Amino acid sequence: MSHADLIASLDVLEAGQSWTTDVIIIGAGPVGLFSVFELGLLDIKAHLVDILDKPGGQCAELYPEKPIYDIPAWPIISGSDLTDRLLEQIAPFGAKYHFNEMAVAIEKVEQDDGTIKWKLTTDQGTTIEARCIIIAAGGGSFQPKKPPIPGIDGFENLGAGKGVHYAVRKMEAFRGKRIVISGGGDSALDWTVNLANVAERITLVHRRDDFRAAPHTVAQMRQLVADGKMDLVIGQATALKGETGHNLEAITIEDNDGNELHIDADAFLPFFGLTMKLGPVAEFGLNLHENLIPVDTEKFETSTKQVFAIGDINYYPGKLKLILSGFHEAALMSQQAFRYVYPEKKLRFQYTTSSSELQKKMGVK
Amino acid sequence: MSHADLIASLDVLEAGQSWTTDVIIIGAGPVGLFSVFELGLLDIKAHLVDILDKPGGQCAELYPEKPIYDIPAWPIISGSDLTDRLLEQIAPFGAKYHFNEMAVAIEKVEQDDGTIKWKLTTDQGTTIEARCIIIAAGGGSFQPKKPPIPGIDGFENLGAGKGVHYAVRKMEAFRGKRIVISGGGDSALDWTVNLANVAERITLVHRRDDFRAAPHTVAQMRQLVADGKMDLVIGQATALKGETGHNLEAITIEDNDGNELHIDADAFLPFFGLTMKLGPVAEFGLNLHENLIPVDTEKFETSTKQVFAIGDINYYPGKLKLILSGFHEAALMSQQAFRYVYPEKKLRFQYTTSSSELQKKMGVK
Repeated sequence: MSHADLIASLDVLEAGQSWTTDVIIIGAGPVGLFSVFELGLLDIKAHLVDILDKPGGQCAELYPEKPIYDIPAWPIISGSDLTDRLLEQIAPFGAKYHFNEMAVAIEKVEQDDGTIKWKLTTDQGTTIEARCIIIAAGGGSFQPKKPPIPGIDGFENLGAGKGVHYAVRKMEAFRGKRIVISGGGDSALDWTVNLANVAERITLVHRRDDFRAAPHTVAQMRQLVADGKMDLVIGQATALKGETGHNLEAITIEDNDGNELHIDADAFLPFFGLTMKLGPVAEFGLNLHENLIPVDTEKFETSTKQVFAIGDINYYPGKLKLILSGFHEAALMSQQAFRYVYPEKKLRFQYTTSSSELQKKMGVK
Repeated sequence: MSHADLIASLDVLEAGQSWTTDVIIIGAGPVGLFSVFELGLLDIKAHLVDILDKPGGQCAELYPEKPIYDIPAWPIISGSDLTDRLLEQIAPFGAKYHFNEMAVAIEKVEQDDGTIKWKLTTDQGTTIEARCIIIAAGGGSFQPKKPPIPGIDGFENLGAGKGVHYAVRKMEAFRGKRIVISGGGDSALDWTVNLANVAERITLVHRRDDFRAAPHTVAQMRQLVADGKMDLVIGQATALKGETGHNLEAITIEDNDGNELHIDADAFLPFFGLTMKLGPVAEFGLNLHENLIPVDTEKFETSTKQVFAIGDINYYPGKLKLILSGFHEAALMSQQAFRYVYPEKKLRFQYTTSSSELQKKMGVK
């Protein structure tokens, strides 16, 4: 299947709703994705939550085209192809995806029968209840790098189409607005071009007249400038004007000669790249060891029952941050997850090569 | 690269000689093969010893065409293709192969500087000395199923071209000999056809006039019978005549009506398939747990220093007999092997994706 078909076939859920499932996987990188396969063989259903807008994690975000050489039986594969092959492999198991959402809190929920479930909340107001939480968050969450403007926090979270935004979730929110976009990479240029028809006015600010973005998009932006449909300013945003916590009014730009310029604006969209941070997982109440989550090597369970950590985010003696180790950890974790999800059932270990029961689940028989 | 090219490119060594290297891998199945990659990234050279005549282990011998579904990022792959992709991946690292040889003993060799090396001996008289031994022998060694003929052991090991043989190592040994081959599968039929021009006379014995072997080979055999160049007898070998420990003279065949037939023969070649046995590894002096070798989960080292066990043959809490787990074990084992092979060097963990040093070793830079 093509990349586009694979992405289109994913069952992506709207934010802000409440769900229940068997297990929640935080992180849709290669290890989170392969977990769907190992869990699926055991009839365990999963929801995946990822801060990115697509599956693949670092492989998709940081090095989609870069060759990886150490995936067993793949002498060479790109991060993007690795993601696609994993999506094909897990397609039969009907996972649900929550993209553009950050897991911000987990909470223990005692059931009437004395057993425990976990409830996860995202920054978009989604809640999911499940028997187990699998943290497969790699180096942590990707978070936007913020421009060094004093008091910028005061203009965040003012609501749709207002104030500072580090990502565009809905283009419509910016219809008729005056927008300043800052940055010189793909995100800055893509959104400049995409929002040009939606916004009342767009100003692109970049510190030099040279862009790292794809040449085609840069050319589109230059055409819009030549046609008088947007403004390009060479310089840096240094201050925000308006009422903090309420609304943004204007942005101060300093050009390379030190001259100041004030641009009236409803929204400011800085695209300065992403950085990896452990993020809210650090506040989940789990034991941590140098920003990693210690686990046993039998079940890859954390110090907290029914909460697992697999892939780059975990720690145990001998740990190597290799994708292939995360695959192994996913397989062993799934056995223990089964015991929590189906306490009454007996776990039978079967091979995909010989079990027609497993082959039916994978849709090959 | 095609399967034939990959096999032809392997550096296969003659039996009966003495070698020294960094590490010896017992078993050239998928886990043994992938070990060459992980060791190679750390500049560790390996010799592989396998009782089979080709790489791939069970994947190549038991299910070359059977689809495997649980290799990460391979939604479906045959045992034979998995072997080929691994051979491609390890090609840059120049491993040496000893096929058709069974590791029968290991012996500790104290060095002048007080350190230890291990010396491995095979049933073909090959010896290899190395810093570490990696047991990646899967379910153990494939051993021939013997026909239920009383006293058959007395006619084994009589020398080249004489007595009972369960494999053909050199066709020339059978030149001018009278041979009885027993069995109805590929091995029996292939050797019947191949030895027909070499032997003085060949008799194929099978319990019914119906063969599991490839139809093309069966047709070749029938043509040889029609041309009077060999004999086909429907029945079963029930007794061997001759001087035990010295030479075979004749074979008694009972047909399906109970009649007995005596065929003069120098050699008897029963091909009744292979069975898996732990084999001589059980005599290596390692701790065993229900025919498996217990290891730690940090280095996958056995109770004996510098001897490792990875893949299906090892045991630790949570162990699953999955190929993907063997891959993980190979990676962690290699780190510790490095410390034994290069005690003076510092181990730096690097990624194939980003390290140009590793990329040079893999021949991609």
